[in-house]
Formats: sequence, structure tokens, C-alpha cells
Amino acid sequence: MENGNSNNNHTINGNYETAGKVITCKAAVAYGPGQPLVVEEILVDPPKAMEVRLRILFTSICHTDLSAWQGENEAQRVFPRILGHEASGLIESVGEGVTDLKPGDHVVPIFNGECGKCAYCKSDKTNLCERFRVNPFKSVMTNDGKTRFSTKEGGKPIYHFLNTSTFSEYTVLDSGCVVKIDSQAPLKKMTLLSCGVSTGLGAVWNTADVQAGATIAVFGLGAVGLAVVEGARARGATKIIGVDINPEKRTKGEAIGITDFINPNDVDKPVHLVIREMTGGGVHYSFECAGNLDVLREAFLSTHDGWGMTVVLGIHPSPRLLPLHPMELFDGRRIVGSVFGDFKGKTQLPAFAKQCMSGEVKLDEFITHELPFNKINEAFQLLIDGKSLRCLLHL
Amino acid sequence: MENGNSNNNHTINGNYETAGKVITCKAAVAYGPGQPLVVEEILVDPPKAMEVRLRILFTSICHTDLSAWQGENEAQRVFPRILGHEASGLIESVGEGVTDLKPGDHVVPIFNGECGKCAYCKSDKTNLCERFRVNPFKSVMTNDGKTRFSTKEGGKPIYHFLNTSTFSEYTVLDSGCVVKIDSQAPLKKMTLLSCGVSTGLGAVWNTADVQAGATIAVFGLGAVGLAVVEGARARGATKIIGVDINPEKRTKGEAIGITDFINPNDVDKPVHLVIREMTGGGVHYSFECAGNLDVLREAFLSTHDGWGMTVVLGIHPSPRLLPLHPMELFDGRRIVGSVFGDFKGKTQLPAFAKQCMSGEVKLDEFITHELPFNKINEAFQLLIDGKSLRCLLHL
Ligand SMILES: NC(=O)c1ccc[n+]([C@@H]2O[C@H](COP(=O)([O-])OP(=O)(O)OC[C@H]3O[C@@H](n4cnc5c(N)ncnc54)[C@H](O)[C@@H]3O)[C@@H](O)[C@H]2O)c1
Ligand SMILES: NC(=O)c1ccc[n+]([C@@H]2O[C@H](COP(=O)([O-])OP(=O)(O)OC[C@H]3O[C@@H](n4cnc5c(N)ncnc54)[C@H](O)[C@@H]3O)[C@@H](O)[C@H]2O)c1
Ligand SMILES: [Zn+2]
Ligand SMILES: [Zn+2]
Ligand SMILES: [Zn+2]
Ligand SMILES: [Zn+2]
Repeated sequence: MENGNSNNNHTINGNYETAGKVITCKAAVAYGPGQPLVVEEILVDPPKAMEVRLRILFTSICHTDLSAWQGENEAQRVFPRILGHEASGLIESVGEGVTDLKPGDHVVPIFNGECGKCAYCKSDKTNLCERFRVNPFKSVMTNDGKTRFSTKEGGKPIYHFLNTSTFSEYTVLDSGCVVKIDSQAPLKKMTLLSCGVSTGLGAVWNTADVQAGATIAVFGLGAVGLAVVEGARARGATKIIGVDINPEKRTKGEAIGITDFINPNDVDKPVHLVIREMTGGGVHYSFECAGNLDVLREAFLSTHDGWGMTVVLGIHPSPRLLPLHPMELFDGRRIVGSVFGDFKGKTQLPAFAKQCMSGEVKLDEFITHELPFNKINEAFQLLIDGKSLRCLLHL
Repeated sequence: MENGNSNNNHTINGNYETAGKVITCKAAVAYGPGQPLVVEEILVDPPKAMEVRLRILFTSICHTDLSAWQGENEAQRVFPRILGHEASGLIESVGEGVTDLKPGDHVVPIFNGECGKCAYCKSDKTNLCERFRVNPFKSVMTNDGKTRFSTKEGGKPIYHFLNTSTFSEYTVLDSGCVVKIDSQAPLKKMTLLSCGVSTGLGAVWNTADVQAGATIAVFGLGAVGLAVVEGARARGATKIIGVDINPEKRTKGEAIGITDFINPNDVDKPVHLVIREMTGGGVHYSFECAGNLDVLREAFLSTHDGWGMTVVLGIHPSPRLLPLHPMELFDGRRIVGSVFGDFKGKTQLPAFAKQCMSGEVKLDEFITHELPFNKINEAFQLLIDGKSLRCLLHL
């Protein structure tokens, strides 16, 4: 893998003369569930009030993109659409009223934005902004209910995704969904902060607030689950049990910090019983990062009764309800959801980026592959096959 | 209603000469689901090691007795059985090794005991004791797996219930399930601390830790729900919304402290929408005290997203799972169960009893009826008909 600093040589197509104009650029367009993305030229409108246009330099694929692409949740299907939400880049131009961002700023998009002004943003209990919280049903801009993307032929609308739509050389976002980071930070690695690493690590630091000496179990060792592992390692957890049906995840897990690995297919009883035996009754915290309800139940039962807490990170597209009986709550196990690791993006990500730059948080293991943007379908396949954590696409 | 102090004249049938002997006394025996209880003479063995025998002076009927009597949960059906778990009385005799209780002590039984020695009892995070936690499947003594009750004719075993079995003039409990309280405390009112009032009030003080200025909604205004109201009033909650399908509960609710009342049958939309409108998006805390899963869902949705918390107190005998979708956890609403109000009974109830004696917590409204023990079936009917909160039976 090349050095993460190389990106600092990037410039925006030479200049910002594009400001105020429609840009023609390449994007990977999804035309239907499971259909290969089509990398083609599209039109990108200038940003409207309080919006910004980004030149995306790197983007990667998170499992949430995969679910949306596969159309797992029918109600959320909208096509044609530009997926992608984990990225980094530069501000190309800003719309009216934007004062905290300017052309050339190094930024990461956040799918769970922060307006800074609503009751939620002002509360220290949540990172769900009233205006820009993650919303899988949203496919147009808040300002005018329209898209900023259109097809080159015919000018038909192409829909947005998760406030971000990063599978495009240029994209338009609400400024509340864009975080300016240190211009010295290696943008390539910073891509990871845009979703996976912040989500997993934040779930440990913010949602569960894991303390030194705690024991944890992580179900699903993708980038999100391994970021949980990294967060727990950094906090001094003494036992970090990784659970994955893909045996290849053991090595990666150990490199980052798991102390034990369980492949559910290799044990002759439910994983929660194995974990309870290994830990004298169960772990303090478990994290569900597989997006599977049966796994969620195992994660729930693998914590210690009386004080265990399960943090749900996985996205569950199935209409199935929580597989828990209400009386099981009386055993003192708690369950909570965590979106974007409970980070308030604009407020907290700049400092988190510094913790990554200083080595307090290690990002090296997460970028397993790099490909040019037009090989995006290969990158999807790597994730589907369980080969990659994050494959960085260069735009 | 007579003065609560009258009970201080009680003595144990004149003396403690019964110690070490089998006692013949009256009990209300349940012979099958929904069959009227039979008040008859039974035999009560002396307490074994670390057990105590109680002379029950007052007992009342909680909805949990009703559910068990009706056999709502088939798996928990065991007959013949002596139900009842909310009571007060005196220690008649103690078994080998019991040092913290002695004959004549004023006590309340607790269905969720505290051994004081296990990892759970030593943790400040839970009130679930490893040995004596509430267990609806348990019907015999821990010591020897046998009953201390038997029929007068034929000596057949009569099973125990919830560590307590208080529908009997005499009963045997593990000493970990008996709390000694101030001998000056009015025993009749202290009966309420044995379950309902401690459960509701503790859910507010311990589980949710409601603070002054908070808004709450209470679903189900039985003794448990109204104890939630009393706890919230004592803590300075500014809005206390009571929800009940029984319109008669409004008056009682207002006497104790509700600021608003909603009868779900009188509104033309789901209760959670009504509550959200009344409170600018939802209450801080909701409490489910009806034991109904559809109500639980309304309670969950009536809290504010981002920071709302629902505390489940109701017992849900139905095999139905939690009617929540995992993605609903991503709206930042939390849900937790609370057993016996998260009170550690032996440690905390004596001080709580003093708070009740001083008037900091008001108990006057909770005892709505009093009857002699042999009218216990009438007392059940009062609860079924929604006429009573607690009907105190005098033994
Ligand atoms: N809550 C949030 O804010 C947020 C943010 C990003 C991603 N997500 C979600 O987190 C989850 C993980 O994302 P990712 O990008 O790391 O995905 P990934 O595909 O890289 O990783 C998922 C891992 O789970 C494993 N797995 C699958 N089924 C399993 C099973 N039955 N038992 C054990 N392990 C199993 C897979 O082998 C894989 O290693 C996805 O559901 C994604 O949508 C949530
Ligand atoms: N968690 C614990 O430790 C614990 C302890 C004691 C009791 N409980 C449980 O708490 C619950 C309440 O006990 P209680 O003794 O106060 O019972 P109760 O029968 O006196 O009160 C229940 C109330 O709920 C109301 N109700 C019923 N259906 C309703 C609906 N659909 N919507 C609104 N209100 C409705 C009834 O009218 C009644 O006023 C029961 O389920 C009981 O088993 C739990
Ligand atoms: Zn993601
Ligand atoms: Zn906001
Ligand atoms: Zn009860
Ligand atoms: Zn204990």
C-alpha cells in the first residue's frame, strides 16, 4: 500500500473555475438492485444555499452501500442512484451562506450530519440532528426536494444516498454533512473516519464507554467490527473476543487486537454459551456488527446478566422484529443502537482525526485494497467475498 | 380505613412456643388455574438452615399473583400452590445460621432476595441476586428442593411461589428474602413496600433516575403505575401523564400526582402521537405498568427520540416477542427492564421505609380496601374489576 500522505499533492482539476457551473464528471450509477454499477459521465449542479460541492478523491465501500445496492430493503429502493458515503476530498465550491467551509478545504462527508442549531445538536445525549440525521429513505436534497445529479443524456434526475453520494468525482452535500479536517491529515486514511472506523470506535468510546479491564465480544469482523476491536484495545479492554463465520478474519482480528476468535461453525453449541464459559458468565459489552438478527440474539445473550450491554451497529434490512422476549430484559441485559458511533461529526471528528494522526488510534490495517474508481464493481465483489475490509477507490 | 399503626398491637399467637414444630394454620391454596382459592388448614414445617418462618399479618394482591393464579404462562403452572408475595409480618422462628433476624422482628418479605455475598449482590449495577433473584419457575426451597407446606389430609406437598408464598398465616422463606424494618413503622402500610410501591417508585429513582423537571408517561395506573407517579412527583417531574383504559383511574391518579390523563379509548389516534404533541416530541421517560405488549410499544414510541427511555415493569406472560424493529433502536430510544425497582431489598428497604414514615413518600392512597383473609377471593375480584389498588387482607 502506498503512503497515506501521497494524496496531499491533489488539486481540484487545476482550478476552481467550475464554481457556479454545472460540472460534467464521472460517477458510478446504480440502475437497479444488484445490477453492476455503470461508471459514466453525469451532470452535477452547483450547490444551493448552505450546500457545498465536493471533489471526491477517495471513496470506499461500506456494507451499508452493499445493502442499498442489493436493494435488501424494498421500501428504500430508489434508482437510478449514486451510492457511497465513506469518502474524503476537497471543497470545490460553496453555496450561499456557507461560512465554515471554503474551496480547497480538506473534508470528509458524514452521512449523519450536524446542523449545530437544533434541539438534538444542542443536547449532549444524541448525535441525531433534526435536519441531517441519517435517513435511508431520503434521496433528494433538503433545500428543494430535488437532485443535484442528472444524466448527461436527457438530464433525468439521479438520486442521492445517505446525505452523501460519494461514488462520483463531484457530489453536492448540505454543509452540515461535511467536516473540515486538518490539511496535514493524510486524506486517504481519513476516508475511514467518514463511516466505518468512526462508527465502530465511537460505539466503544461514546455509546458503551468501555473502560480499562472490560471484556467485550465483537460479532462480525468487517471494518466496523474491527474498529470496535481497535477502540476496545485503545481503552485497555482485557479480553476482546472476535466472532466471525469467515475464518480468514482471525488473522486480521489478531493483528488489530482480538485476544480470542470464535467461528460459530466450529463450535458445537450456541456462541453465547461458549462466550459465557470463557468469561465466567458473559462479557461486559457485546457489539453486533454483522447486520443479522440471529447474530444479534447471540450477541445479546453473550453478555453477563445483571450488567451486560449490547450495542447494535449492524443495519438490519429484514422486516423481522427484535428476537428478544420482553421478560429477557428483566435479566438486566441492556441493548442500545449506535449510529455513527454516537459521534457528533462536525464537533468531534477533527479531534478524532488528530488522535488517528498521532497513532493513538491505528488505521493501518483497515485499507486492504486500492483500485482505480472505474473498477468499483471489483471493489464490491471483494467486500461480498469477505476479502477486503476497505478497498480505497482513487477518483 | 383504620389507622395504619393499629397493627403494632399484634403478637404472635401469644408466644413462640411453636418454634421447631410443625404449625397447623390457615392458608389460601390455589388448586388450578382460575379456580377460587381454598382457605383451609395446612401444615407448615419449621425453617431449615438459613431459613425463617414468618407470621404473616397483612398481605395484598399484586397483578403478578393474578397472572400466576390465572395460569397465563403455562410453563409456570404448578399446583397446588400458595401464591402471594406482598405482605408484612413478624419472625416466628429462625433456622440454623440465621443471625440477622430473630423472633419478633418486624419484617417484609421480598420476592427478589439479596444474599449479600454473590457477585451480583456485590455489584452496584444490579439487584439480581444469584441465589434469590425472582424466579417464576421456582416452586420449592433452594436448600433441599422440597416444600415447607403440605396438606393437612395426606401430607401432600403444596408448592411455593416467588420465594415468598404469603397467602398463609405462616410461611417459610430464605432469610435472604426477608427484610427487617423499624419496629415503629406501621406494618400495614409497610406491606406495600414488599412489592408494588417499591417496584414503581424504585423504577423512577433507581432504574431511570428521573430528575426534577423531567416529563414522564405512565401506562397502567394500578398500584405499580401509581407508585411510579408518586416517585416522579417526589423527584419533581413537571409533567406526569397517566394512561389507562379504566376511566376511574383518573381521580386516583390526580390525587397522587398525574398532571394529565389519557384514556386510549377516548382519543382518535395512537396514544404515542397524542403524548408527542403534548410534550413537544415525547416524554423523557415512559413506564409500562400494564403487562401488555401493544401498550409497551406505545410506551416506547411516546418517548422523545434521541434520549427517551422506556422502563418495562409489566410482567408479560405472552410468548410474543418484543414488538420493536432493531432499526428503531437507531432513533436513540432506550428500553430497559426493572425488577423490584432495582432496589437491593435487604440493604435499601429499611431506609426507604423511613422515607415513607417521614411522609417524603406518601402511601395513603394505595390501600383502597381491607378485608379479612378468608375473603381473599373477593379481593382478587376487586383487582380484576379494576376497583382496587391494593386490598389489604388481615390474617
Ligand atoms: N450503525 C451505523 O452507523 C453503521 C455504520 C456503518 C456500517 N453499519 C453496518 O455495520 C455492519 C458491518 O459493516 P461492515 O462494513 O463492517 O461490513 P462487512 O461486510 O465488512 O463485515 C461484516 C462481517 O460480518 C461477518 N458475518 C456475516 N454473517 C455472520 C454471522 N452469521 N456470524 C458472524 N459473523 C458474520 C462477515 O463475515 C463479515 O466479516 C453492516 O450491517 C453495516 O450496514 C452501521
Ligand atoms: N417488574 C416487577 O418487579 C413487578 C413487580 C410487581 C408487579 N409487576 C407487574 O406490573 C404490572 C402492574 O401491576 P399492578 O399490580 O399495578 O396491576 P393492576 O392490575 O393493579 O394495574 C394494571 C393497570 O393497567 C391498566 N391497563 C390494562 N390494560 C391497559 C391498556 N391496554 N392500556 C392502558 N392501561 C391498561 C388497568 O386498567 C390497570 O389500571 C403487572 O404486569 C405486574 O405483574 C412487575
Ligand atoms: Zn457506512
Ligand atoms: Zn441539528
Ligand atoms: Zn408484585
Ligand atoms: Zn446474592
